[in-house]
Amino acid sequence: MSLGFHHQLDALTTTIGELCAHAGRAVQGATQALLQADVALAESVISEYDKIVRAAAHAERDALKLLALHAPVAGDLRTVVASLKNVTDACHMGSPALHISEIVRRRHPAHALPEELKGYFAEMGRIAVDLGNKAKDVVQSGDPCMAAQLRNDDEAMDHVHHQLSILLMEREWRHGVAAAVDVTLLGRYYERFAEHAVEIGRRVIFQVTGVTKYAS
Amino acid sequence: MSLGFHHQLDALTTTIGELCAHAGRAVQGATQALLQADVALAESVISEYDKIVRAAAHAERDALKLLALHAPVAGDLRTVVASLKNVTDACHMGSPALHISEIVRRRHPAHALPEELKGYFAEMGRIAVDLGNKAKDVVQSGDPCMAAQLRNDDEAMDHVHHQLSILLMEREWRHGVAAAVDVTLLGRYYERFAEHAVEIGRRVIFQVTGVTKYAS
Repeated sequence: MSLGFHHQLDALTTTIGELCAHAGRAVQGATQALLQADVALAESVISEYDKIVRAAAHAERDALKLLALHAPVAGDLRTVVASLKNVTDACHMGSPALHISEIVRRRHPAHALPEELKGYFAEMGRIAVDLGNKAKDVVQSGDPCMAAQLRNDDEAMDHVHHQLSILLMEREWRHGVAAAVDVTLLGRYYERFAEHAVEIGRRVIFQVTGVTKYAS
Repeated sequence: MSLGFHHQLDALTTTIGELCAHAGRAVQGATQALLQADVALAESVISEYDKIVRAAAHAERDALKLLALHAPVAGDLRTVVASLKNVTDACHMGSPALHISEIVRRRHPAHALPEELKGYFAEMGRIAVDLGNKAKDVVQSGDPCMAAQLRNDDEAMDHVHHQLSILLMEREWRHGVAAAVDVTLLGRYYERFAEHAVEIGRRVIFQVTGVTKYAS
């Protein structure tokens, strides 16, 4: 395969990594907006989302061009197809920030979160940012060991999410049904962010081992 | 492009359509399990999920083979890449049935749904089955007009989901927080099924018009 092909593939890989980190920063902003009921910040995250979508569409066109112009085979083909799928996951990593910010906007000027639950969401936000940065490193390095480590962050996210679920199911929940609904959805958004990051990690592992597996 | 290529592409398209319909039948089973608190049926839907995942992995390998062996260009390339992405969405259309059935199992022998909400979920289940069958027809026919109609079903799903959200936010909600959490998650699962079906429809439209758009 030509030098041009690998140069363009490297550029695509860099872009996809940046997309993951971008999605992480978006969740960081959304989390801050959530914790402080900062509607201006929420609005800014919402309007930023379009940039992620456009960057993803651009990356997808680049991947298609690589297939059309170079007709790669074997490992190169697998890498381009994995890139195409990573673009979709990276784009989906951008949606939770949008949905979290929409809840902030809907509840404004009230806080969507009961004060005593803020620590859980600060922690889920921190893990998400970390996952976004690690997914970037995984995509750009193609390192399957690093990719396997994404699973640890996902487990940390699941752990916080599970604690939240227990709180919601306790008889002493005293924040009302509306807050319970918001907390349920918010928790699910952070979890989905982690799922897409892990899916990217799994794909990097697949490229090395050839084992395919879907997330539920 | 060779006759062999188009024959294999047709077979792949048929498989992806079947996957959509299969996912629809899975939601039908999950909905019935939910409405009747039928844990045996829920278990059967849960164990069926693996078949959808395996069929999707198989279809994905077929799409990769088409790229590797025939190096298609222009419209043919676009169709194979769209098929690859449709496989992912069709596979994700299978997850809601799994998640719904897991809630049925978790609440057994109790009913996850308050009696008066069952009508809403029967309706969302009906729309999902319809969407699964229509997504099959859209994939197999490649008809962009039929694809655009998926949007109507998605709007019908959104409408029921919105009515549920209103009920959850009412002061008179008297089914407790645990039921509110379940209903929130369940509603979201049906909504996601519809989103993936619509994404497939959008992709069929893209193949004709060349306009790409991501769902949030």
